[in-house]
Amino acid sequence: MAMEIERRFLVKDESWRDLAEGLRYRQGYLSVDPARTVRVRVVGDDAWLTIKSQVSAMSRHEFEYAIPRADAEQLMDAACPMVVEKIRYRIKYAGHLWEVDEFFGENGGLLLAEIELSDEATEFVRPDWLGEEVTLDGRYTNAYLSQNPYRRWPK
Amino acid sequence: MAMEIERRFLVKDESWRDLAEGLRYRQGYLSVDPARTVRVRVVGDDAWLTIKSQVSAMSRHEFEYAIPRADAEQLMDAACPMVVEKIRYRIKYAGHLWEVDEFFGENGGLLLAEIELSDEATEFVRPDWLGEEVTLDGRYTNAYLSQNPYRRWPK
Repeated sequence: MAMEIERRFLVKDESWRDLAEGLRYRQGYLSVDPARTVRVRVVGDDAWLTIKSQVSAMSRHEFEYAIPRADAEQLMDAACPMVVEKIRYRIKYAGHLWEVDEFFGENGGLLLAEIELSDEATEFVRPDWLGEEVTLDGRYTNAYLSQNPYRRWPK
Repeated sequence: MAMEIERRFLVKDESWRDLAEGLRYRQGYLSVDPARTVRVRVVGDDAWLTIKSQVSAMSRHEFEYAIPRADAEQLMDAACPMVVEKIRYRIKYAGHLWEVDEFFGENGGLLLAEIELSDEATEFVRPDWLGEEVTLDGRYTNAYLSQNPYRRWPK
C-alpha cells in the first residue's frame, strides 16, 4: 500500500504539447465510491487493477496489482459502465513530474494536469500552461468522468 | 476469467458437522453491485481480490488475483464498510463438492450451503441436511450480508 497525494489543474493553452510523447490509456471503474474506487487500466500491453481509498481531498491510500491485459479488456467490456479514453503526456518541470491528460470520446475537449507530491504541503512551481486548480472539485476525477462524461456536463 | 455457476441453500440441521474440517474466512467488499462485486478475502496466510460480474441469477464471470495478506488486511480496515466472518466446511457428497458456511458476528446464526456447477442444468443429489434453495434471493449473497447482516434482518 502506498499513499498517493495528488493535485489537479485545468490546462489553459497548448504550449505543453511539444514537451512530451503521449501514451494511450483506457480505464474503467468497478467502483466510483471515493472511499473505495476500483479501477481497471490498460496502457499498451500492460494492465492493472488499482484500489484507492480517500483519506482527504488530495490524499488516498493506493493498492495496485498488475493483471493480464486480456482480463482487463474483459472486465472493461463485462463489468464497467463506461471506459475513459485519454492520452497521457508526462512532462518534467522544475523538478516535478506533471501528467497532462487529453481526454477523448465522451470526455473529448477536456485537458487535465496532475502533479503527485510526497506531502500535502510540498511546494512546486506552476508551469505557464497551468490553469485553475480543481483538486477539490470531485467532477474532475476520472471516476466521476466515467459516469458523467465532460461533454454531457451542463454548460 | 472463469464462469462461476452456483446454487445456494439454507441448512436445516447439524448432521453435516462431522463430515469436514472448517477453515476460517474473513472477507469485505469494495463494491456490492451485482454487476461488479469486488471482494477482498483472507483465508489463513492467503488473500485474494475477486471480481464477479453477474450474468444470470446463478452465473457470474469471475476474476481472481492473489494479493499480499497485509494488503488485504489494510483494504478491509481502510476501505470495506464491514467484514464478513465465517467458517467454511467443504463436504463431498454424491460426486459434488458442497461448501457449508457458518457465519459469525453480526451474521451469527446463519448457515448456508453452496454447490458450484459446470452448467446451470447440471443435476445433483441433495444431501439430507439441505434446506430451502435461496439462489434467487439476493439477501443471501455475502455482498448483501456485508451491508445488511443477518441479525439485523426484520423477523
